[in-house]
Amino acid sequence: MQHQVSVITLGIADLARSRLFYSQGFGWTPVFESNEITFYQMNGFVLGTWLTPKLEDDMQRGGLVRPGAFALAHNVSSQEEVQPLIDRLVSAGGTLLRAGDAPLHGGFRGYVTDPDDHSWEIAWNPAWAIDTQGLVTFAL
Amino acid sequence: MQHQVSVITLGIADLARSRLFYSQGFGWTPVFESNEITFYQMNGFVLGTWLTPKLEDDMQRGGLVRPGAFALAHNVSSQEEVQPLIDRLVSAGGTLLRAGDAPLHGGFRGYVTDPDDHSWEIAWNPAWAIDTQGLVTFAL
Repeated sequence: MQHQVSVITLGIADLARSRLFYSQGFGWTPVFESNEITFYQMNGFVLGTWLTPKLEDDMQRGGLVRPGAFALAHNVSSQEEVQPLIDRLVSAGGTLLRAGDAPLHGGFRGYVTDPDDHSWEIAWNPAWAIDTQGLVTFAL
Repeated sequence: MQHQVSVITLGIADLARSRLFYSQGFGWTPVFESNEITFYQMNGFVLGTWLTPKLEDDMQRGGLVRPGAFALAHNVSSQEEVQPLIDRLVSAGGTLLRAGDAPLHGGFRGYVTDPDDHSWEIAWNPAWAIDTQGLVTFAL
């Protein structure tokens, strides 16, 4: 079986507010936008931000709650980039969870939420290669 | 800015139960395992399943709840593969949310949860290319 995730879909409440966070905070440009969903082409998969009631309808599951027991991470290429990106994400509508500091396993990281309470880790992990396409490889 | 997610981390309660779902259900082999986290090398990023209290400590955020307002998707290459994979995931400890059927926008999909209540869509989307490395490209 292919080790493959095709889409990460985040439930959101407000398309414009979410788009501002991802476009001004991360600097990402949507590949598609409608009146209920925004898609971003990512490194080997697609990120979708979809109005939560639509996601609930599609999965036939109501009662989605927040904050969910998950986190997404965006790795940067140096320790010095971590906190400025966290600050920019907060300026774009995010909320600081943890300012950048050094975990025991090495590197440097902090956490911020998007406007819909989804957790993002911003990290520098010198062991994990990121190629020019943004493809990330696990290593110790 | 690179359109890049480095890690998806799912909070879990039981390492062995989660590992069984991902290894026997999806057929994925971990790239790393410890007594608190399992990592899988995916298509351009890393999937981690981490004991929820450890994730909460790391993000300095308690009270993570389920089901979170998000879904992951795994796309397959034909409509005929959708329901058998859903069935296999249920056999490996998942719970059916929605049996495979055809959405209005085309293709075929169903939903299942992993043992920690995280939602997975299993989909056939003929418009989206998946290359031999598992890299997925958005298209209409």
